[in-house]
Amino acid sequence: MRLFTYFRSTASYRVRLALAYKGISYIPHYINLRIDEQNNDYKETNQFGLVPTIKTDQGTIFQSLAIIEYLEKLHPTPTLWLEDHFKQAQAMSIAQAICCDVHPLNNLRVLKYLSGTLGLSDEQKNAWYHHWVHEGFKPLEEQLKGVSGKFCVGDQLSVADICLIPQVYNANRFGVDLSTYPTIKRINESVLTQDWASVAVPEAQADATSL
Amino acid sequence: MRLFTYFRSTASYRVRLALAYKGISYIPHYINLRIDEQNNDYKETNQFGLVPTIKTDQGTIFQSLAIIEYLEKLHPTPTLWLEDHFKQAQAMSIAQAICCDVHPLNNLRVLKYLSGTLGLSDEQKNAWYHHWVHEGFKPLEEQLKGVSGKFCVGDQLSVADICLIPQVYNANRFGVDLSTYPTIKRINESVLTQDWASVAVPEAQADATSL
Repeated sequence: MRLFTYFRSTASYRVRLALAYKGISYIPHYINLRIDEQNNDYKETNQFGLVPTIKTDQGTIFQSLAIIEYLEKLHPTPTLWLEDHFKQAQAMSIAQAICCDVHPLNNLRVLKYLSGTLGLSDEQKNAWYHHWVHEGFKPLEEQLKGVSGKFCVGDQLSVADICLIPQVYNANRFGVDLSTYPTIKRINESVLTQDWASVAVPEAQADATSL
Repeated sequence: MRLFTYFRSTASYRVRLALAYKGISYIPHYINLRIDEQNNDYKETNQFGLVPTIKTDQGTIFQSLAIIEYLEKLHPTPTLWLEDHFKQAQAMSIAQAICCDVHPLNNLRVLKYLSGTLGLSDEQKNAWYHHWVHEGFKPLEEQLKGVSGKFCVGDQLSVADICLIPQVYNANRFGVDLSTYPTIKRINESVLTQDWASVAVPEAQADATSL
């Protein structure tokens, strides 16, 4: 299995966490979407021009949550899906809230549009970034207070945790004050102190050249 | 089962299509997020303040794809998940591309931020809307040319179709020229001519007062 990844991409980081948790080995291909040449060549692999993508004997799959569901089917143990249907729905709702309502507003191509096409200042762009993280994290913190244990939903690791950790990394990178989100911070530490997680973090990637 | 829905919300429309396809009856609660009072009261049901939400005996679940996965577990027949793992991954990647990379950039709260906080003109807001639909639909059309049959992935209806149809409705509403997307248009018609679909469309909702 080949993984097209970029160390700072939170969507790639989700898939790296899932692969690490399940102990699946892969061949990494490092794609830096800021370099135009890599960007253009990469569209032959993924027409959307976004990371991550996985390539297997059967073909290519893109979109982090589609890849993670596929990995779950191929390698069901250890699982990232909760057995109880309602708890799994709670986990998936947290995962989707992050992937659909926080991350897409703050990825590279959107920030490029804000500064390029709309001519926004760095200050306005930064305010945009912080606004959407807080819009997502405020209700998420409330939600997690009710359903979390050691991890997002009770004491079992799930797809929700796999999505939360990269978003916290990204928020920290952009200097978002997370002091009002003690539950989010606690869960983040619970996951990052797991042995298996260390190979998935951005700092451990071979393309982490400009941290 | 109660569904909190708004006729024009594409995320609500996805869930209505899944409910209709599976023949699950529900009690609708109509939420108009443009009305501040309804918006505030609704946060007691869904802290994120977004539709759709479902409420069952077990509690509330939000985020359209989390709800649809939950419905799939509770009512597996007829299924929206494809049996072949790779085909299911293709369907989910299309669903996620729409839900994560097209829709979130163009929903009400984002358009409000563009005109309110950033003071963008209607023309700039419209250009933003069209830009992100085309950014998603161009590669999606290419993808679908390769994998579609009658529906998005071969001839079996899947979660991909459930997500595509509302996005086409939304694009039409904002006057996006879809003439360069013949595959997307063909699949849209294939789904909308199914008998079960008619009760899910925006025009058939009791809150469709201002079409």
